[in-house]
Amino acid sequence: MTDDEGLTVGALPRGFVWGAVRAGIKVSGNLDLAAAVVTGVGGAAVATKAGVGVGAVMYTSNRVVAAPVTVGRRHLSTTGGRVGTLLVNAGNANCATGEPGIAGCVATCVAAAEAFGCIFDEVFPSSTGIIGVPFPAEKVVGAMPALKAAVGGTAEHAEAFARAIMTTDTRLKVASAGFAVEGAEPSARAEVRIWGAAKGAGMIHPRLGAPVGAGGEASAPHATMLVYLFTDVAAEVGELNAALAAAVEPSLNSISIDGDTSTNDTVLLLASGASGVRLTRELVPTFDAALAEVCGSLAHQIIADGEGVTHVVTLDVRGAATAAEAKQAARAIANSPLCKTAWSSGDPNWGRLLAAAGYSGAVFQPERVRIWVGAEPVFAYGVRAAKFDEAAAHAAMMQPEYTITIDLGEGDGACRFLTCDLTVEYVHINADYST
Amino acid sequence: MTDDEGLTVGALPRGFVWGAVRAGIKVSGNLDLAAAVVTGVGGAAVATKAGVGVGAVMYTSNRVVAAPVTVGRRHLSTTGGRVGTLLVNAGNANCATGEPGIAGCVATCVAAAEAFGCIFDEVFPSSTGIIGVPFPAEKVVGAMPALKAAVGGTAEHAEAFARAIMTTDTRLKVASAGFAVEGAEPSARAEVRIWGAAKGAGMIHPRLGAPVGAGGEASAPHATMLVYLFTDVAAEVGELNAALAAAVEPSLNSISIDGDTSTNDTVLLLASGASGVRLTRELVPTFDAALAEVCGSLAHQIIADGEGVTHVVTLDVRGAATAAEAKQAARAIANSPLCKTAWSSGDPNWGRLLAAAGYSGAVFQPERVRIWVGAEPVFAYGVRAAKFDEAAAHAAMMQPEYTITIDLGEGDGACRFLTCDLTVEYVHINADYST
Repeated sequence: MTDDEGLTVGALPRGFVWGAVRAGIKVSGNLDLAAAVVTGVGGAAVATKAGVGVGAVMYTSNRVVAAPVTVGRRHLSTTGGRVGTLLVNAGNANCATGEPGIAGCVATCVAAAEAFGCIFDEVFPSSTGIIGVPFPAEKVVGAMPALKAAVGGTAEHAEAFARAIMTTDTRLKVASAGFAVEGAEPSARAEVRIWGAAKGAGMIHPRLGAPVGAGGEASAPHATMLVYLFTDVAAEVGELNAALAAAVEPSLNSISIDGDTSTNDTVLLLASGASGVRLTRELVPTFDAALAEVCGSLAHQIIADGEGVTHVVTLDVRGAATAAEAKQAARAIANSPLCKTAWSSGDPNWGRLLAAAGYSGAVFQPERVRIWVGAEPVFAYGVRAAKFDEAAAHAAMMQPEYTITIDLGEGDGACRFLTCDLTVEYVHINADYST
Repeated sequence: MTDDEGLTVGALPRGFVWGAVRAGIKVSGNLDLAAAVVTGVGGAAVATKAGVGVGAVMYTSNRVVAAPVTVGRRHLSTTGGRVGTLLVNAGNANCATGEPGIAGCVATCVAAAEAFGCIFDEVFPSSTGIIGVPFPAEKVVGAMPALKAAVGGTAEHAEAFARAIMTTDTRLKVASAGFAVEGAEPSARAEVRIWGAAKGAGMIHPRLGAPVGAGGEASAPHATMLVYLFTDVAAEVGELNAALAAAVEPSLNSISIDGDTSTNDTVLLLASGASGVRLTRELVPTFDAALAEVCGSLAHQIIADGEGVTHVVTLDVRGAATAAEAKQAARAIANSPLCKTAWSSGDPNWGRLLAAAGYSGAVFQPERVRIWVGAEPVFAYGVRAAKFDEAAAHAAMMQPEYTITIDLGEGDGACRFLTCDLTVEYVHINADYST
């Protein structure tokens, strides 16, 4: 069902148009301002008027707050989750920009509301790029007529949207899934589609809080991982919140490139309702599975395109006392420079894995632990595995992608966590500075 | 008072001999087995017999336990802190080696007790090196006669001890301090001396628990930071525990090279009592200051010799709600790959500092925060500092050593934390693997 390699119009959910322009924010002069606009008529129970969708959002738990996050949270809170227009710029994070940053963000929302025919509060703003540089709101406002002229419903339009949000990404990150609704009339509308676009290659270690307004009080941020999920299902905000939280935890909330949790990680799920299919209780498992597929694909694409990455490593931690402790152990290993540098050369130095698990805070007894690299046992019950074969373990680690399995031998807590190696290239990318 | 650059016999505490030999554990064939033996007569209230000192020890909080740590904890618990002989090898950590590792460690303690004339429980074992490789106890036992012949009380003997414990260290790490005791007779004994030797260049992020037997129940480890502190003061184990904990917290427990907390960080303070000076309550502040000086010097030497390090950075975090939160913020910044890579090129990207503080868990409001790089203000009250001068900030960061000051604007919590940059050379050192 998932399609990572390209876009077809058939894959795109109905009820949206997308577009992007060059507003002159990126130094490169590339596409840097994008919009997604809800055009379809939502189910009557869902949206209050035509051209407005329903949005669920999860933000990073970082304490530092970018202007679009402050404004976005305020808008969702005011409208109870109604979103008419998503407005994203890349090249400037509008973070640590103080009151002028907030004022600039508000000015761009006013301009987008006028251009796309929704009210001010129904604009959802996002920004990504450098922190602490004054936000060029005038460039965004000035580009709004061109942006209005640029939107459309074709695959090219959607691709332009996905391309404009990229920063250090080297590849476009999109995924889609869909399903026919059983028992419905065999019409074109009896199908639910989900399409997602993401950006992020560095400062990636999302720790997303509960959905906004869903009871959790996530601290505000401004982000480097941006994920926008579009669907034509008809649903209420509480239903979308539940679906989003369930999909994000094992995917976008279980990845790390460098352990640096960004100040504005944002995941938005936006539903147009244009399929005419109501997200009933019976449909929830099918919808959840499709959403999980899209989120899982985007999470994988983010890691695979991580800065300087040459190996993608799945950490399969099981046997922890709790799922939370399994994730603690996985995060410690995923963010350990000694583990990550060993992965870059395929060094089967399992002592580093064990040491990182040991300081993670997860409770375990080393004499009950087993570790495999790919299918190769490397550590078992307190000592090097009897069948440890260094050459075979090294060969497994020279694959571009492999799994490390760690059984802590304590209980039933488990998690799968996706991460990558640390290479000289990562250091070059992030140390690059010319006076 | 501190002497980082060399050793003089005058600086060495009385009541000890040191020595080292080549036991064939290091692949390089360098010195790899060292001993320090208590020879002086302790104060009657302190040691139970001649040739036995009093030891206070702090171990890492890592859950993974090396054999010498298990055995060392057992010995200190059995003897109530009596230590006659310190036996250290480098080249093999004797960690994740199971029961054979424990048996091997015990065998080396038996041999050392015989050679140096103390009982088995009074031997304090330490190991550093690779994890998970069977421990060559027979090499240690076989080298014991040579080690016995090698010990002595000169500066050369002490230097051989310090040299043998090195692994990836490029420089010898020693420090000393001493003080005359006021009101005492002007004899040679009315002076207290402290001398310390340390090793450690990678897997350095010590999080040492409470001293063994001091009420804290630290989990057991095996280590890559080893610090041995020798003094000729006469003291009881509880007094030494208190002095050690106070000295270690702001020094060896406030440093990080790579964020990887080793499995056998060990800090041992060993008192011979041979000065004849009792550590009275009046003497405590003076002794504490001297011990702090030695620990601070060794902590600095460890960071300055860190793997691939080109810049030493002091994080001066103040204005936190609590001291613990100040340290949380400092640790997050110290271990952030994005901060560390920026430091390697002198990039004044203060947004990365702010972001790392933001995800550290420390509570603060960005609009109350101020940040300086050296003397240069870079961030103030939510926005880039009005006087931000990028060229001046860059120049400050091109110094081999400088301070970053972060005032969180919340309360009186403060800490100073010593760390370093992340360079291509660090990746090369730790990714080096040949099939």
